[in-house]
Amino acid sequence: MRPIPLVTLTTDFGSADGYVGTMKGVILGIAPDARLVDVSHEIAPQNVRQAAYVLYTAYPFFPPYTVHLVVVDPGVGSARRPIGLRTPVGTFVGPDNGVFSYVMACEPVEALVELADPRYRLSQVSHTFHGRDIFAPAAAHLAAGIPITALGPSVRDPVIFPPPRLEITPDGVTGEVLHADHFGNVITSIGQLVWGGDELSLEPAFREAGGGGQVRFRAAEAVVMVAGQEMSGLYRTYAEVEPGEVLALVGSEGHLEIAVREGSAAQRPGLRPGDPVVLRWRMS
Amino acid sequence: MRPIPLVTLTTDFGSADGYVGTMKGVILGIAPDARLVDVSHEIAPQNVRQAAYVLYTAYPFFPPYTVHLVVVDPGVGSARRPIGLRTPVGTFVGPDNGVFSYVMACEPVEALVELADPRYRLSQVSHTFHGRDIFAPAAAHLAAGIPITALGPSVRDPVIFPPPRLEITPDGVTGEVLHADHFGNVITSIGQLVWGGDELSLEPAFREAGGGGQVRFRAAEAVVMVAGQEMSGLYRTYAEVEPGEVLALVGSEGHLEIAVREGSAAQRPGLRPGDPVVLRWRMS
Amino acid sequence: MRPIPLVTLTTDFGSADGYVGTMKGVILGIAPDARLVDVSHEIAPQNVRQAAYVLYTAYPFFPPYTVHLVVVDPGVGSARRPIGLRTPVGTFVGPDNGVFSYVMACEPVEALVELADPRYRLSQVSHTFHGRDIFAPAAAHLAAGIPITALGPSVRDPVIFPPPRLEITPDGVTGEVLHADHFGNVITSIGQLVWGGDELSLEPAFREAGGGGQVRFRAAEAVVMVAGQEMSGLYRTYAEVEPGEVLALVGSEGHLEIAVREGSAAQRPGLRPGDPVVLRWRMS
Repeated sequence: MRPIPLVTLTTDFGSADGYVGTMKGVILGIAPDARLVDVSHEIAPQNVRQAAYVLYTAYPFFPPYTVHLVVVDPGVGSARRPIGLRTPVGTFVGPDNGVFSYVMACEPVEALVELADPRYRLSQVSHTFHGRDIFAPAAAHLAAGIPITALGPSVRDPVIFPPPRLEITPDGVTGEVLHADHFGNVITSIGQLVWGGDELSLEPAFREAGGGGQVRFRAAEAVVMVAGQEMSGLYRTYAEVEPGEVLALVGSEGHLEIAVREGSAAQRPGLRPGDPVVLRWRMS
Repeated sequence: MRPIPLVTLTTDFGSADGYVGTMKGVILGIAPDARLVDVSHEIAPQNVRQAAYVLYTAYPFFPPYTVHLVVVDPGVGSARRPIGLRTPVGTFVGPDNGVFSYVMACEPVEALVELADPRYRLSQVSHTFHGRDIFAPAAAHLAAGIPITALGPSVRDPVIFPPPRLEITPDGVTGEVLHADHFGNVITSIGQLVWGGDELSLEPAFREAGGGGQVRFRAAEAVVMVAGQEMSGLYRTYAEVEPGEVLALVGSEGHLEIAVREGSAAQRPGLRPGDPVVLRWRMS
Repeated sequence: MRPIPLVTLTTDFGSADGYVGTMKGVILGIAPDARLVDVSHEIAPQNVRQAAYVLYTAYPFFPPYTVHLVVVDPGVGSARRPIGLRTPVGTFVGPDNGVFSYVMACEPVEALVELADPRYRLSQVSHTFHGRDIFAPAAAHLAAGIPITALGPSVRDPVIFPPPRLEITPDGVTGEVLHADHFGNVITSIGQLVWGGDELSLEPAFREAGGGGQVRFRAAEAVVMVAGQEMSGLYRTYAEVEPGEVLALVGSEGHLEIAVREGSAAQRPGLRPGDPVVLRWRMS
């Protein structure tokens, strides 16, 4: 039995204008039984990396027949290609600007096409709103069962941005700040971290990232360094420190996270996106 | 076969309180299989004109059986009537305060009624939340197939606000700023503009608006004037200028739009809602 | 016939990150035909009382088979229990931190269990995101028809916070400010108030609250006192005063509300959450 079509939406459109609603109208006109789920419409305007990160945290938790529609598109109207990407765990639709870099670093690519066939676009395509005119119709047709290869020719050279910093040495690992969430929790590129008893194992989250295979270390010896200074040991949960105290822990996506219990870590020095963060597990 | 009922929601309720969710509970209690799509809940409080504009950009992209529920209602509890409006491209439910002015300027009115029949309201109607007690039940019953004429008597004198400024002369056209969107793109009343090769055609977006039929002009000769000064020529897409540069282009709804590439035009002088904007296509 | 599963979501997650979307992916993976309705994701971070209030205003308007999922969870990862609660008007899932206090004060408890059975959790449970790993799966299984008693053992001592202040005397009633909504309307604990002709009746909204049975008084004699001073008489609707004027009225949930027509009352002195408000109906 065909599953109920499921489409997620991730954009930088905000929620004040009717742009997201308009895309949903287009989708439901093509696939009337589709289920629509908002991932985020509060991506910072034109921030492709932030969209890539938010998508990376969400897509693994959706059924594999889900179509993930992403419209963060500073190049709309230029020569950048609109693309569709099929993997074993989901199908993705959006601009070819790197927004699927983390997906392609984690999942095998089964098909990658340019959304070129006019039958799967609106009959009029504007210069400024391809979310409505190209991406939403493509996502709806894919969700309704059109095979991805029908939408256009193969793409062999997608835009992929370099993986975030992750340098593993015998003493520790150096990563970078990726993102601060709504609570002020600061998420780093240091992952995947998995607890096992009193130890943690670390395996690079993105295939292309530096470092070899898995390393293991004892939690009790681990120290997190920010701006060259020791900031915290490694905890399991916010509740292990007092309200207002800073702590480092393994966040819900398996990445090292720096947080303040019942507060925000995002404004602390050394914790802006791109700033280096070091996790050391052997004192020298 | 009856289509899956589809209801959109446009309000000034924000998303912090449970008001929108409460309306959805009422709708799903009456029409359990209805699909619900948010157009916007971030209309500025009591800004009926903004709601009318946002609705105008979204409704043409929904299937014609859609019911559009709009609750921006500064007169709640007063004598203003709750109304339902049927057109060939959609059915509309909300207060009789002008919020459907643009719809009625663009679409033929098939039926317009007062939502008076208590069978299609909640059993208790509060003085302050007609969205929950009157409008949501009416939208749900309409989506579920109740004919609009069952909901109450005909209305012959709906509140309609005057169309936005649009004065076409042989040399150009004077309009006004309607709206600034989430990105800081400033949308004007000058539309519908349609590209055809190197030329554009202009036809008034709203039937009541001033000016005669269609005019045509060459894009290369067009200049946009704001606050009495030349601001920009007319471009096809944001990518034609450098990041940070101002440009005028035809926005996704076919209206003249003033934008800053990867920035905001909304704070520039002369671009507040109501300010005049001139598009000249023949130099004098 | 089994109804279409219906799940509402109330969190402090905001809408910028993908956390809410991720929970929805988990729910739809378990219950693919579930309908999902957002109540609010803008609860102030870790503000359990605000979440309890917003839920209290919304749940009565949903069908009784609805599952209400609430994740405002400052104690995530600590020993606080995850619980499920069944009442005749809805089923509730969330942390045992008082967030269901108002529900339990208004509705009979048919079953209250700890969400302990690992079959109804994700296979990996993180220390920091029980919304995704414990609460969303539980809500989905309940919505899909699993009986609540299958999810874990009974809980006999749930966390309940004391009811808000409500002291009824022959001359009037003293309550407190509960909440300021998006419009700046200030909602108090003084309810339920019901209009009957020129009179009002008052009956405590929460069973545990002080005072005896119902009292009745004449609206024309009622005066609302804030910070020890007369602020307003009692009106039926915003439209009875001029724009910008302050007024007291019975809000849409039956509670005394202080508002400014087409403005905000939230910044006025004496109207912060917890501040006392007095409604007097007999002059001494």
